[in-house]
Amino acid sequence: MKRAVVLLSGGLDSATTAAVARERGFELTAVSVDYGQRHRVELEAAARVAAHLGIADHRTVAVDLRTIGGSALTAGIEVPKGGADAAPEAEGSSIPVTYVPARNTVFLSIALGFAEVLGAFDLFIGANAVDYSGYPDCRPAFLEAFERLANLATKAAVEGRGRYQFHAPLLHATKAEIVRTAHRLGVDLGLTVSCYDPAPDGAACGACDSCRLRRQGFATAGRPDPTRYAAGP
Amino acid sequence: MKRAVVLLSGGLDSATTAAVARERGFELTAVSVDYGQRHRVELEAAARVAAHLGIADHRTVAVDLRTIGGSALTAGIEVPKGGADAAPEAEGSSIPVTYVPARNTVFLSIALGFAEVLGAFDLFIGANAVDYSGYPDCRPAFLEAFERLANLATKAAVEGRGRYQFHAPLLHATKAEIVRTAHRLGVDLGLTVSCYDPAPDGAACGACDSCRLRRQGFATAGRPDPTRYAAGP
Repeated sequence: MKRAVVLLSGGLDSATTAAVARERGFELTAVSVDYGQRHRVELEAAARVAAHLGIADHRTVAVDLRTIGGSALTAGIEVPKGGADAAPEAEGSSIPVTYVPARNTVFLSIALGFAEVLGAFDLFIGANAVDYSGYPDCRPAFLEAFERLANLATKAAVEGRGRYQFHAPLLHATKAEIVRTAHRLGVDLGLTVSCYDPAPDGAACGACDSCRLRRQGFATAGRPDPTRYAAGP
Repeated sequence: MKRAVVLLSGGLDSATTAAVARERGFELTAVSVDYGQRHRVELEAAARVAAHLGIADHRTVAVDLRTIGGSALTAGIEVPKGGADAAPEAEGSSIPVTYVPARNTVFLSIALGFAEVLGAFDLFIGANAVDYSGYPDCRPAFLEAFERLANLATKAAVEGRGRYQFHAPLLHATKAEIVRTAHRLGVDLGLTVSCYDPAPDGAACGACDSCRLRRQGFATAGRPDPTRYAAGP
């Protein structure tokens, strides 16, 4: 069995991505990143999802992106609520204030380090260019550039032991398609947390961009939404 | 004055790089990374160097690369001593066991996040392809690939507010040339720490690859070596 590294945030997309990787026959190591995120309950969700998917090897790396700041998820910036019309994006920008500077670059770097140590050359990430087209580091061009970098950056690649491949199986999927894929693969999405601003008990706010996309995804897919919302759905 | 971000490890190369960036007229933010390195005294050295160079803005980010391991600098692997003949490199590899998987990729990602938040588009790194040609992530091709990535990964670049440039002014310099440059720019190299395996009091071992290169650098440059060695030089 070939080993692969999957970035597991505890959200819907990464849980489904892990299930896809498992279906493709990879033995998985899940990597979560504790980056000082506002929605830390997702780290507990990541552990639940790893156990649910039978991923025995789950590692969490701490990197304090609060030191960098610059995002509604890591600094004292309010998470926008109430939909696209009301979303207070950064002035003159179409990219949401929940964008975290260089986040996926940092995450993929850490995943790459793990892959090299484990002798894995396949990496899975739940990046999605449809619903989050506002995030530059979720685009195909970004992932291709990172793959190119990884094959220059590492001893394992330079010495010809393998070629790193970055898989983003949900890159072009809608949220509804992701919900359907998860259902087909038997993923219990009730274990996942997508909310950017959950209540202390982990209940989803139901109003942030991430909650709205998730809720619409279940509705469009015609599947019951297992999310526990702080405000009624 | 244009702002730039400089990665400051506390070693000879990054201190000299910072001085070069200052000479080129940049207002600097220094970024150090506490990655669980064996040679943690270098973080204290970084603070001393920042103060010495008049860099008021010095930030340290914690990312625990010990969780990843795989290097003599972060895991329980012995640091080789005694020179090239005796250096126990990884089996079948010409890259030293002090190579840290994906280290410069992680460091540059973090520096990129800072640069974006600060509105800086110039980043300086003390990478050197001459003495450390064994490290794949110190090569020009790596830095070029990272620059390309950075301009795809970030909101600031995608929205056209600027183009990230990565400067490695010492990339093709020998250690002796770096020592001379530092001297010309008034850098007190006695404040820097290069040793991979220093004594608890911070004294350099004098025998690891990094100590040997540094010592040779001073000798070739014809400059007194201000390093405090545990074993006499």
